[in-house]
Amino acid sequence: MRLAAIGFDADDTLWHNEPAYATTEQKFEEMLSRYRPVEEIRQRLYEIETRNLKHFGYGVKGFVLSMIETAIELTGGKITGAEIQQLIDMGRQMLESPVELLPHVETVLHSLAVRYPLLLITKGDLLDQETKIARSGLADLFTHIEIVVEKTPEVYANILARHNIPPERFLMVGNSLRSDVLPVRAIGGLAVHIPYRVTWQHEVVNPEGVTYYKLSHIGELPGFVHRLERGEVEER
Amino acid sequence: MRLAAIGFDADDTLWHNEPAYATTEQKFEEMLSRYRPVEEIRQRLYEIETRNLKHFGYGVKGFVLSMIETAIELTGGKITGAEIQQLIDMGRQMLESPVELLPHVETVLHSLAVRYPLLLITKGDLLDQETKIARSGLADLFTHIEIVVEKTPEVYANILARHNIPPERFLMVGNSLRSDVLPVRAIGGLAVHIPYRVTWQHEVVNPEGVTYYKLSHIGELPGFVHRLERGEVEER
Repeated sequence: MRLAAIGFDADDTLWHNEPAYATTEQKFEEMLSRYRPVEEIRQRLYEIETRNLKHFGYGVKGFVLSMIETAIELTGGKITGAEIQQLIDMGRQMLESPVELLPHVETVLHSLAVRYPLLLITKGDLLDQETKIARSGLADLFTHIEIVVEKTPEVYANILARHNIPPERFLMVGNSLRSDVLPVRAIGGLAVHIPYRVTWQHEVVNPEGVTYYKLSHIGELPGFVHRLERGEVEER
Repeated sequence: MRLAAIGFDADDTLWHNEPAYATTEQKFEEMLSRYRPVEEIRQRLYEIETRNLKHFGYGVKGFVLSMIETAIELTGGKITGAEIQQLIDMGRQMLESPVELLPHVETVLHSLAVRYPLLLITKGDLLDQETKIARSGLADLFTHIEIVVEKTPEVYANILARHNIPPERFLMVGNSLRSDVLPVRAIGGLAVHIPYRVTWQHEVVNPEGVTYYKLSHIGELPGFVHRLERGEVEER
């Protein structure tokens, strides 16, 4: 079997992302710690973020709006204007911070790009993702870049159909079982899970009965692809 | 000459958009009117919005964040938590409000879709635009839907190249000279300007020496396209 294309998730697959959220969230918890216990702040922020996803989508702007709402609610409106301004400034900082690639990413993409069309498939805020892709310096390695609202089986099916890629010859690589593995398996594609050291609670799933491959880091990918095409690997 | 495809802008070309912003902005001005004169509020909001475009992009979320920043600044931090919550709620309302099509839009798109591939090319927030397109009920009439961060000549050139559309046989229809007309003319495409009754200050330009067509409403488009292909219209 010869792969027709390889797809890559971006955040926490090609570059670090979750730590920036975690750091900001920690500052947020410190800011509110004189009003409420940290556990409650964390829990309520997560609830408000989840509720807001359908209105605000993924990304920094929605995250900032959720922090503001959480702060207003948990302080009974006592949060100050200056503190809310700080929350917005933290968001702006996140949007401006440099993109730090994970180890092996550049080498691996350069070597695979010679043999396969590479797709970047990422969900989130359009501007946010586009500027990260630009700052990453990796844009030219991808044949197609797809920024989507949500990674559902339909979304993947649509992308593959548009580029004439048969799902059974498509391999998706990413850190999220929920977004990168399960929906691709659902349409008959192949998927490699490369866990990142932390996973946002929202992306955590427990997939029963779904088979997929797992690597410990992206440096193992070229060797894996080679063995996969020669029929030498078994699904986990 | 036979057109290869027709492109449409969305906000204020196919459906009303600017009035929702104007209404929200009016409520915002009322909220702050006990602190500052309305003229100053309006001016400062516009400055902060413009400054924030490069971080937050176009769309409701960025607009809400800009209103919050303006409110904090103009009230010297005295704006209350409850009032900031109201600003976020106004944004959520904008995102949920029904999409109201402009007159003639449905008939015109249905008739043109029979003869030409139609492209929807809109800038703004991904989730925001996708849900509006879904709510509009028009999605199936378009061969391709392109949501972009900014409408530059490069962005248009890239879209046309990707779909094998020769620029000189592409007609773009929209209400913004800045986003729909000038960049398309710059790459050798044709453009029809259909002004909406209000234009956001940011989109106002004074294009000297650029030629394009102008219609008073979209209902005139099919007849115009017919005459254009027969060489019967002159550029304005």
